[in-house]
Amino acid sequence: MLPPYMTAAAIAGRVAAGEMSAVEVVRGHLERIERLNPLLNAYTDITARRALSRAAEIDRRRSAGQAVGPLAGVPFAVKNLFDIEGLTTRAGSKINRENPPARADAELVRRLEAAGAVLLGALNMGEYAYDFTGENAHDGACRNPHDTNRMSGGSSSGSGAATAAGLAPISLGSDTNGSIRVPASLCGIFGLKPTYGRLTRHGTFPFVDSLDHVGPFARSVGDLALAYDAMQGPDPRDPVVAGRPAEPITADLDKSIEGLRIAIAGGWFGTGGLPDAAAAVETAAKALGADRMVDVPGAEAGRAAAFIITNAESAALHLNRLRQRPDDFDPDTRDRFLAGAMLPTGWLVRAQQVRRWYLEQVMALFREVDLLIAPSTPFSAPLIGQKTMNLRGEELAVRPNLGLFTQPVSCIGLPVAAVPIECGAAMPVGVQLIAPPWREDLALRAARHLEREAAAAARTPKL
Amino acid sequence: MLPPYMTAAAIAGRVAAGEMSAVEVVRGHLERIERLNPLLNAYTDITARRALSRAAEIDRRRSAGQAVGPLAGVPFAVKNLFDIEGLTTRAGSKINRENPPARADAELVRRLEAAGAVLLGALNMGEYAYDFTGENAHDGACRNPHDTNRMSGGSSSGSGAATAAGLAPISLGSDTNGSIRVPASLCGIFGLKPTYGRLTRHGTFPFVDSLDHVGPFARSVGDLALAYDAMQGPDPRDPVVAGRPAEPITADLDKSIEGLRIAIAGGWFGTGGLPDAAAAVETAAKALGADRMVDVPGAEAGRAAAFIITNAESAALHLNRLRQRPDDFDPDTRDRFLAGAMLPTGWLVRAQQVRRWYLEQVMALFREVDLLIAPSTPFSAPLIGQKTMNLRGEELAVRPNLGLFTQPVSCIGLPVAAVPIECGAAMPVGVQLIAPPWREDLALRAARHLEREAAAAARTPKL
Repeated sequence: MLPPYMTAAAIAGRVAAGEMSAVEVVRGHLERIERLNPLLNAYTDITARRALSRAAEIDRRRSAGQAVGPLAGVPFAVKNLFDIEGLTTRAGSKINRENPPARADAELVRRLEAAGAVLLGALNMGEYAYDFTGENAHDGACRNPHDTNRMSGGSSSGSGAATAAGLAPISLGSDTNGSIRVPASLCGIFGLKPTYGRLTRHGTFPFVDSLDHVGPFARSVGDLALAYDAMQGPDPRDPVVAGRPAEPITADLDKSIEGLRIAIAGGWFGTGGLPDAAAAVETAAKALGADRMVDVPGAEAGRAAAFIITNAESAALHLNRLRQRPDDFDPDTRDRFLAGAMLPTGWLVRAQQVRRWYLEQVMALFREVDLLIAPSTPFSAPLIGQKTMNLRGEELAVRPNLGLFTQPVSCIGLPVAAVPIECGAAMPVGVQLIAPPWREDLALRAARHLEREAAAAARTPKL
Repeated sequence: MLPPYMTAAAIAGRVAAGEMSAVEVVRGHLERIERLNPLLNAYTDITARRALSRAAEIDRRRSAGQAVGPLAGVPFAVKNLFDIEGLTTRAGSKINRENPPARADAELVRRLEAAGAVLLGALNMGEYAYDFTGENAHDGACRNPHDTNRMSGGSSSGSGAATAAGLAPISLGSDTNGSIRVPASLCGIFGLKPTYGRLTRHGTFPFVDSLDHVGPFARSVGDLALAYDAMQGPDPRDPVVAGRPAEPITADLDKSIEGLRIAIAGGWFGTGGLPDAAAAVETAAKALGADRMVDVPGAEAGRAAAFIITNAESAALHLNRLRQRPDDFDPDTRDRFLAGAMLPTGWLVRAQQVRRWYLEQVMALFREVDLLIAPSTPFSAPLIGQKTMNLRGEELAVRPNLGLFTQPVSCIGLPVAAVPIECGAAMPVGVQLIAPPWREDLALRAARHLEREAAAAARTPKL
């Protein structure tokens, strides 16, 4: 039997060396999915036939002495807003299920497969990506592998849970306000939200065009970098990415971080979290030698702007569906979309001005600092169905507050490595390593340093 | 007595050579303003004391053998949305008159004076710049020097009328949807709407931040270029301009236009105008050797987007004034602002998407073409108070349709030289020479060619 939790790098190495067949790897994962998915509800679609045929092809290529790619035989799965040829792209909704099947794969699926990876299926997500919890009224909640009574986090819920549970060493998700970083934190794995405009969104169902990012999850920094490198590069079909060149990081991942000016994000990021979140930041800061704390000016205003822009743009996208089929929405997302449809226009104008102003503040900060450490979430996974959480003596809503620390970062498009921290907390919790635009390399090198120092590691669930 | 209609270049040359004193030049202009302004209503404020003291200083500097600058002794005036130290910046409104006086000059006023020019005063404009007619309920209509029963065009109405009537060889205006190009066309003079982000707006009262441009009017292309060159260059206080370097054009103005791929803008720009507008385009095209007509894809959608963005952003800016003092607005602008305050947010989201899409279409067109010729206005100056105009067999509103051909150009920030064309029309009418972003040089060189070929010239009013 295949050992669970093999890294992508180990699988690709053994498959390329002929020590293990891609078919064997895929079979092992399909069996594990069959056994565990009923508990976790991470996958919504399993593309077993396609995966086995693809794996057999890789094995044939290897036997024939042909190149098999840096991700040879590595299983992966994608949030169900990525197009998969022949499947309908649900984006977590009921309404989209009536759409015809996708006629081609999303570009990132194509690129991962071109690097030798094997698609296993599509993953659960919050409806239309407007979610931090992992709950979904149509597909059911995705469950946290470390405690199946608890939330996986969202909206890339299935991506977080599947990779945490060893149901795919690599998964893809999307992050608009925190939808990669929140489930990475709650499920105890690594995630990368690249710079806005770095990875092509061609063939994905949008949420908020001016804020949407796509990126990978993995159980090690090396795997994260491998997947990221396989997906980078120009794509004229995504106008935000367009001619953006690839800047591979894998080869330099172990470069020393000496000389990097790393600071702890204070102010907004220093308050409002529970002790576990603070302990994670402290552990990471210590291992990175960061003793300085800096204020991130405008973070709270930036988050408010992100709320409004998200609300307004997504409501505009779904307006016809809201008008014609309000009862077919998940009630938890419908309330948000309806509010967005009724926002005064002046709020959006102001929010866009605030976003520009806030970006200027943060870019000035990056003249003095190379990397910021902040909590990913203010607390570890709440119980499924839990509506409120006691924070700073106040009973606050869980749903929006899961994004307390992620929202002010993505609204200005900064790259972030989400890193699971070993700080003795009962449930996993992670930190964000936040870099200036286009410096994913700094965030990933610092994440790798934490992993080397044993301060960061994907947590293994008892399943 | 000072000859009227002297160019800025001629004035600066004679003042620098000691053939004419700056004080004499300023006195001559002040006398002309005193005589003609009651007819035209172009100036709202005359800064005679400041002008005479400034002129005397220039004369002193010259006598002492000191440098006097490329605009030595050249009078200029500014739309009353530019700050002038010690005067309240009206922006054409009644409400703003209660504001305290400006504590410093707008940066462009400072730069023109640093080049030796002399400020004569502030000019009439449509309220808060939301206007194409030159009518103003508080200050009265600005009148066209070629027929004082007719509109000057707006919103830089006083700028157009003052320079056309020889009340200042150079004037400054602003252009959001056509507010430089419309009065230039109706008053028969030259205007430059530079690329969005080229000239600093520091110290000006805004209208629509994402669409506002400032620029000069003149009676010759050489004067336009002189003023433009004196105003270019970085200004960190305008974040859109920031570090933008100066790219002076005056020295290269007479460079041959041979090899430039000049085309007539067809499609949207080829229909909807009256015969005068078509004749102006034909005359310009012939003199420029342009026989090709190209479609500008998306122009109509781009104009619709400009309407919505203008409406939404400006209403957000004025929201408190609209709430508290609706009766103190000009009724013609109040109706527009109120409509903007009630726009659904989704419209703005869509308009911003359309604007980005339309820019892509036009940038693709600029791979095949270097310069586009289009009418500035669909007709020459209507009568003051005239509400409708027969266009294509339909009785259409004058007010919005004056911007029929300018709006789709500024909403994507392209640089445009507005050029008065000698085509035998009874009242002046002009064309736009539209260049790719940052290529003001191409538009101005083509304008200079038209002037050399006697196809373009500022028209002299009978006053």
